[in-house]
Formats: sequence, C-alpha cells, structure tokens
Amino acid sequence: MTHPVDRAAIAAAHARIAPHVRHTPLLRLAAGELGPDFPLTLKLELLQHAGSFKPRGAFNRILSARDAGELPASGVIAASGGNHGAAVAFAARSLGVPAEIFVPELTPAAKRARIESFGASLVRTGATYVEALAASRARQAETGALEVHAYDHAHVLAGQGTTAREFQADAPDLTHVLVATGGGGLIGGMAAWYAGSVRLISVEPEACPALHDALAAGQPVPAPVGGVAADALGARQVGALMFPLAQAHIAAALLVSDDAIRAAQRLLWDRLRLVAEPGGATALAAVLSGRFQPPEGARVGVLVCGSNTDPATVAG
Amino acid sequence: MTHPVDRAAIAAAHARIAPHVRHTPLLRLAAGELGPDFPLTLKLELLQHAGSFKPRGAFNRILSARDAGELPASGVIAASGGNHGAAVAFAARSLGVPAEIFVPELTPAAKRARIESFGASLVRTGATYVEALAASRARQAETGALEVHAYDHAHVLAGQGTTAREFQADAPDLTHVLVATGGGGLIGGMAAWYAGSVRLISVEPEACPALHDALAAGQPVPAPVGGVAADALGARQVGALMFPLAQAHIAAALLVSDDAIRAAQRLLWDRLRLVAEPGGATALAAVLSGRFQPPEGARVGVLVCGSNTDPATVAG
Repeated sequence: MTHPVDRAAIAAAHARIAPHVRHTPLLRLAAGELGPDFPLTLKLELLQHAGSFKPRGAFNRILSARDAGELPASGVIAASGGNHGAAVAFAARSLGVPAEIFVPELTPAAKRARIESFGASLVRTGATYVEALAASRARQAETGALEVHAYDHAHVLAGQGTTAREFQADAPDLTHVLVATGGGGLIGGMAAWYAGSVRLISVEPEACPALHDALAAGQPVPAPVGGVAADALGARQVGALMFPLAQAHIAAALLVSDDAIRAAQRLLWDRLRLVAEPGGATALAAVLSGRFQPPEGARVGVLVCGSNTDPATVAG
Repeated sequence: MTHPVDRAAIAAAHARIAPHVRHTPLLRLAAGELGPDFPLTLKLELLQHAGSFKPRGAFNRILSARDAGELPASGVIAASGGNHGAAVAFAARSLGVPAEIFVPELTPAAKRARIESFGASLVRTGATYVEALAASRARQAETGALEVHAYDHAHVLAGQGTTAREFQADAPDLTHVLVATGGGGLIGGMAAWYAGSVRLISVEPEACPALHDALAAGQPVPAPVGGVAADALGARQVGALMFPLAQAHIAAALLVSDDAIRAAQRLLWDRLRLVAEPGGATALAAVLSGRFQPPEGARVGVLVCGSNTDPATVAG
C-alpha cells in the first residue's frame, strides 16, 4: 500500500531541518558492558535540542507550513506531555514565531520549566495528554494558530523519521532497532525509513500499551495511560497515520514494567553517565530486562530518546 | 629533545587498551548553540568507563606491567582525588587483580562510592592528593603492589594520549583543542600525540594553577589547591614527565574562575543534557567565559573529560 510518509519525504525533511537539529552521536558498547551478552549501539538522541527527538518533527511541520505560506501571524499551538511542547517552543523561538503549549496535570515540573524557558505561553489543563489536546484544539479554533500535532501529522512523522536516516547512515550494519512508542510518531517515521530493512521493535510500558493493544485489535484503540513514563508515552491511542506503517514494518511490540524502566535509568547513569527520563530509557529496558532476546549474530541498536527529567532522580 | 612518550608509544597503548576502553563519541555544535559565535566539537570522554578518561592510562599501566611479568600478586595501588582511583579499581576488577586506593578528605562521596563499587579497598587519608600519595607510597613499600601513578608515569601518559589519537582520527580538521589540566597526565599525553599539529590549550581553575605556574617558573613548582574542581585537578604540582611536553607543545595555559566552571556545568546540562563534574566542565568554561578567544576560522575542539558527581548538583 501507499503510506503517507516514505523515504523521499524523510529525505526532504532532512534537507529542511538539518540546519536546526543536532546529528546525535552513537555510543558503541561491547557485549556484557550493560549486562546482556551482545554488543549494543546506542543512538544518543537524548542529546538533541530541547532534550528529546521531538524537534525533528516540530521543525519539519513548522518549516513546511512556512515554506507553503501557511504559517499564521498567531504562530503555532500544540498539546504535549512535555517533550513535544518543549520542542515546539524551541523551534518557534528559533524561527521567531509565537507558541502556545497545552500540557496536562501529569507533566512534570522539569518539562513545564523547559517549555517556559523557551519563551512559549504555557497552559496546564486536563489529567492526561488527550484532555490537553482537546483544550488546545478549542483554543486553536479561536486563534487560528498552526497546530503542530505531537505525532499524527505526515510532516511530524517525516521529521521523526530522520532519526532512522541518521541511525542507518552511521550504523548501517544493524539488524534490530529498538524504539520507545507513545503516540507512535517516532517509530512510525522510523518504520517508513527502514521499511522492513531492519527488525524494528516497539517498546512500551505495560502501563501505556497503546501500540501493543492497537496491533492486537487491528486498529488504534484507547489504551490505559499510567506509570512512570506516562508524561512521555501516554498518548492513550496511537496515530491513524502511523498505524499502517506499524502493521507493515514493525516486527514486535514489547511491553516492559515500570521497575525495568527505572532500572534502565539507573544503569544508564551508573555505567554510562547518561541521564535519561523514563520514556527515554524504555527501549533499553527491554534489552536489560531480557524481554528482548536477539537471535545469534544480531546487531542491536537502541534509541535513547529523551532526558527531560530532574537529574537527581536517576542516581542509585 | 626526546620525550618519554611519543606517537609510537601512544599507538602501542591504543592497541593494548582498545578492548578495554570506550571509543567515546563526538558532539558537533553549530555556532551560537552554547553562546560563543563559533562551532565547537566536543569529545564526550565523560562517557568513558568509570566516568572519566582515566581508565586509558590505568589499563595501559597495568597491562604493560602484566605483559612484562611485573604484576605482583598483591595487585595494584594508587592515590587519587577520585577519578583515577575509580579507573584503577575498574581496570583491576576487569583484569582480576586486587586494588587498594588512597583518597584525600576532599574526595567527594560520589567518587568514594564509585571506587568501592568496583570492589577496591579504599583508604581515606590526608587533606589533599599529595598527602594521600605519600600514604599510598608508605603502604606500597609494605605490600609491594604495583603503583599506578595518577599522571607521572610514561605508561599512564601514553594511555591518556590515546584520547588525542581518537580525537584526531574523528575530527582531523581541528585547529585548537582545549583540555583541563590537573597533574598533567592527560594533556601531557595529548601533547605527545598532537606534537604541535594543533594549538593545544590547557585550562585550569584559578584555584589550582599548577601548569600555569610551572610554565611561568620554567619548572614544576608547588601551586595552590582549592576551589570546586580540587578533587579532580588539585595535584599541587604537575608531573616531571609531562613538563617538557608542555613546554614544547602546549600553546597556552589559561585560568578560569570557579564561577565560570559552575556556569559551564549548568549550561552542559541545560543545553546538552550532559552531567559533567567541575573538572570535566573546566575546559569548556574557558570557551564560554570568553577567556579563550579563537582567531577567525579556527576549528575548536573541547574535551569534556569527567562526570563523577552527584547529578543533583548540575541542575539550574
């Protein structure tokens, strides 16, 4: 079938956003360094601007609209658990447009502070992301600002897909790539890039199983939102655009416990001196907990995708 | 003149230690990202095993002794402000030999815990590094263990010099490289590798000016030890072996304030989500404070060399 995002769209996104985002580095780890007896290649996307991969999609959405002459004077508006909001605020400031960001009550203080530090107007409303999204849409109807959806827009998917383009360019030998899934913008974009050329593995918290449940149901369905990574991965339901990409190109949708996520955060600090937020450590948690077991000879990549947390929370 | 460490010794060290150390990644930053209006290439050596560059020298010293049949059953002994001790403890555990580590009172709890986590025996004695070193030497006379000096040994210098070998291989275009100096093992080894092919800039805290004072005096001289980076950079006097290398190949020895170091730590967290200890942020502090001003067209590299600190100390 034809997908709304393909490699050409991702290559175009790369050309558009490259001056605005960081090409994040890899860290190659020998077998045993973190426990499991196989090598790992980590992509340190947590070192991206604004502390997560989200600026890729935000810049692609906003720049595409600007290039099309569709960026209103009222600027941009977004709903977010926090990371997307920070990314939209960062991109908007870089491009000189106003931004209004809606976050739910569960968004942690570190992420709210980050959004405001980039000069955006912050509105805190609703229990979880979906309520904040509804409020942002009501507001958008009044202001006419450009909506920058956190995941369910072709330009956002294509922007996030540039993560896979970089990962493949820098580590072309990988056979398996593990990525955390929330609303599915990141893994959807990466699925469009890899398109089956690696085994792409989704990892979600047991408490936020939106893609796992959608694949079981054969369509996006509402799922629980809870646990330690709810602010990053608690979208309730995966995007309509990403779902066919997931069906076509995602090899497995694993679930990990909150304890495994916390353990991965602690190990990232203890062994690598990296501060990852719970959602940023979720993909690695599948490896460390043994939930993911690669076949003999696999070459495994893991995206570490976010770091917007109080650093005091990751130590021992 | 002939130096005790040269490129051949560093290449040999690389071959010896490569299975045991991480090839640390670069992070390339566009002009303006951290403030100054020129691009920066950071080498993220703070992601090295045990949280600093120190395992390079420790492994080279211990493996060289083992290869020569000179590693006693009593194992290894070292004095350290903390990072070298953690590195020796890490290397000793990896190689299955006992380790005894002497640290002074000023060594922070995070570093003491790290040393003990690697299974070494820890002795806390003396106000600063030089007193701990004296105590370790008295003990060494009893046990016959192999002394792994924190900086003033040719194998240690050659091991630290592999940092420059990697940096040059990955960023061959640099014209200026900034490195923090304590006892001088790191910058001495790097000076031996670069050998004048880049402008190698030493950066020290104003409160620990050992190399600055030595270059002014024409020989290593005792210097004050104080301030926020004293546990990492407070060697009192630079090594005899590194000093001729410094005279020959170090372009400048800059000093920065403790406030500039703390500001660099905060910026590394805020903009890059990296947790650096004060000594690890010292080289960057020279750039951010304006103490280092590159000429037009310079391509500037900075080593971020350590991260053994309580992560709660770097936020806001």
